[in-house]
Amino acid sequence: MLNFNYSIPTEIYFGKDQIKKLSSCVKKFGNTVLLAYGGGSIKKNGIYDEIINIFNSQNIKYVELSGIEPNPRVTSVIKGVNLCKEHNVDLILAVGGGSVIDCCKAIAGGVFYEGNPWDFCLRKAVIKKAVPIGTILTLSATGSEMNGNAVITNWDTQEKLSFGSPYVKPKFSILDPTYTMTLPEKQTAAGTADIMSHVFEQYFSNTEETYITDRISEGILKTCIHYAPIVIKEPENYDARANLMWSSSLALNELISYGKVTDWATHAMEHELSAIFDITHGVGLAILTPHWMEYVLSQSNVNKFVDYARYVWEIPEIEDKMSMAKSAIEKTKEFFISLGIPSTLKEVGITEDKLEEMAEKAVKRGAIGNFKKLEKEDVLNIFKASF
Amino acid sequence: MLNFNYSIPTEIYFGKDQIKKLSSCVKKFGNTVLLAYGGGSIKKNGIYDEIINIFNSQNIKYVELSGIEPNPRVTSVIKGVNLCKEHNVDLILAVGGGSVIDCCKAIAGGVFYEGNPWDFCLRKAVIKKAVPIGTILTLSATGSEMNGNAVITNWDTQEKLSFGSPYVKPKFSILDPTYTMTLPEKQTAAGTADIMSHVFEQYFSNTEETYITDRISEGILKTCIHYAPIVIKEPENYDARANLMWSSSLALNELISYGKVTDWATHAMEHELSAIFDITHGVGLAILTPHWMEYVLSQSNVNKFVDYARYVWEIPEIEDKMSMAKSAIEKTKEFFISLGIPSTLKEVGITEDKLEEMAEKAVKRGAIGNFKKLEKEDVLNIFKASF
Repeated sequence: MLNFNYSIPTEIYFGKDQIKKLSSCVKKFGNTVLLAYGGGSIKKNGIYDEIINIFNSQNIKYVELSGIEPNPRVTSVIKGVNLCKEHNVDLILAVGGGSVIDCCKAIAGGVFYEGNPWDFCLRKAVIKKAVPIGTILTLSATGSEMNGNAVITNWDTQEKLSFGSPYVKPKFSILDPTYTMTLPEKQTAAGTADIMSHVFEQYFSNTEETYITDRISEGILKTCIHYAPIVIKEPENYDARANLMWSSSLALNELISYGKVTDWATHAMEHELSAIFDITHGVGLAILTPHWMEYVLSQSNVNKFVDYARYVWEIPEIEDKMSMAKSAIEKTKEFFISLGIPSTLKEVGITEDKLEEMAEKAVKRGAIGNFKKLEKEDVLNIFKASF
Repeated sequence: MLNFNYSIPTEIYFGKDQIKKLSSCVKKFGNTVLLAYGGGSIKKNGIYDEIINIFNSQNIKYVELSGIEPNPRVTSVIKGVNLCKEHNVDLILAVGGGSVIDCCKAIAGGVFYEGNPWDFCLRKAVIKKAVPIGTILTLSATGSEMNGNAVITNWDTQEKLSFGSPYVKPKFSILDPTYTMTLPEKQTAAGTADIMSHVFEQYFSNTEETYITDRISEGILKTCIHYAPIVIKEPENYDARANLMWSSSLALNELISYGKVTDWATHAMEHELSAIFDITHGVGLAILTPHWMEYVLSQSNVNKFVDYARYVWEIPEIEDKMSMAKSAIEKTKEFFISLGIPSTLKEVGITEDKLEEMAEKAVKRGAIGNFKKLEKEDVLNIFKASF
């Protein structure tokens, strides 16, 4: 196990009706809010009205940034930065899933940076100060509600890149599982794939003796596998929604990365797909993951896959470890298909002629991944296998 | 799953040589420290000298409170309060295991309270302000390094009682697994039993659909079961010490209690044993736990024990659930014995004539436990079975 520093400062208000904490949460930081959201589903399901009623009754001033894209664009970030500066915003309230929250993180840092916030993604600039962020989560997926990471898309350069900063970790997040009950089945499924992918990226590691984090990781995977089929059948099952929501946060709040080297190759590959084809992130991950697993599996790392088979899929232990590993990978693939997620890149509109270009871009800043380092040829092989 | 508010503000510096963070951690709070420790083992293993060298080279002033008892007494608390007031202490640094840290929590609150700090345990007073606390952990056991709980003993009234306050959650904790390498085997074993007991108290709950916390709890239990025998054989096995240390913190920092009603009957019973006979807390817990399990097991809660059997002990699923449950309880008992922990109250010097008095005191403030409510007769039955 490697050394680590633990710091999860986000206050979580988890459960039904926790929106009642909103006003006291906001007032710790001031009285003027940037209310940021996406395509407007929060207006249909009543969350928007709930928030506005609280703001009005508590004399909280707000300015709105709406229409943040599913793969949030740097253009929306700049719009948000300008609104914050113009209105002297004290707190940014992100209401939505990871895209809205990620966009708000870039805005939060951008307010105190003179250049283009895209520089954070290019590592040309580092966030040293940020407007405080609060979130109201409406989709269990990215874990952005409890960490300092963000992924932003630049449509001009067709790039989707990430940055991270402790300054943009949300100060508070309101996690009410009922807010995810009206989600379309497709989004629930893609969100679950995203949660599981986050676990995989941290679970498949060569760092030895990370037993405790491995077992916790398996617990989160089992939770997804147990509850995702339930919410697909019963979208209003509170406990199923609650377990998935808490999985989303725990899967990417550092808890399961402490003490180990993590991978993140699958995310790097997927970002190239959605940067060009604007596909749903979780869908891209679900397609690539089993092929990544098949590609990286080797005699030297088979024990990790055996753990995965035993503890996650409860596959009985047999002598042939490779066969256990392959069964677990097959189960993974079948599981995503059972959630109604497409299983090939072709199905989601990706064209074969772009595979090479995307593979090239994926390794533009060097080989990706740590469990196994992937060069351009490796990425291309995985893309082809996934096609 | 029930609603919950997440708040784990303690900064953790985990790993080898993390003591180098001490000076910057201290200086966030000021320049005068109460250095609190126990019987002096930190002088033998070099930790004391390391700290003093840092204090001297960084011009940090300190006053010492030594000799804090394994079941810390309210008399030590009062001594510490007086030292803090006299020397205008900015930070209390607890160097030791749970006893030292717990004592420091009572001191921290006591400084701002005019009465006897024992009042916190009697619920006659509530902590509203506290001197900041930092810890350097030397024993993996109580989880006190990452929570707001404390247990104090009043030798005059032969009572051992607890209190909790968010104000006494440590601001930082330095967790260096190498600091636990010189521990006697008995303390390592008792510490492991303590960690596991914390998990049991939260795991055995009637709250339904707490799947994610249940799986995480099982992961912590498996970690203890995997590594405790290793550290008993190889006291200097870093990874084994590291996994146990992180288990200790995660077992009682709220992570596995979120969203559920917890039990704590076994702790309440054990406190009566050690209040009168001053036995090692973890040993008392290890003796009582299997008997508590046997006593509370019923058709209505057998599924929880089946999960425990399957996921913790990897007992193959069979139709006879009660038999699976009993096998898991037997495994628990055998495991504690394998660590060299006594298995009867008699062996640790408890006398039969006191059982009734201790049972009476255990329920003095009402029935204990939630998984199954225990009245005096129940407690007495468990004591007798454990005798």
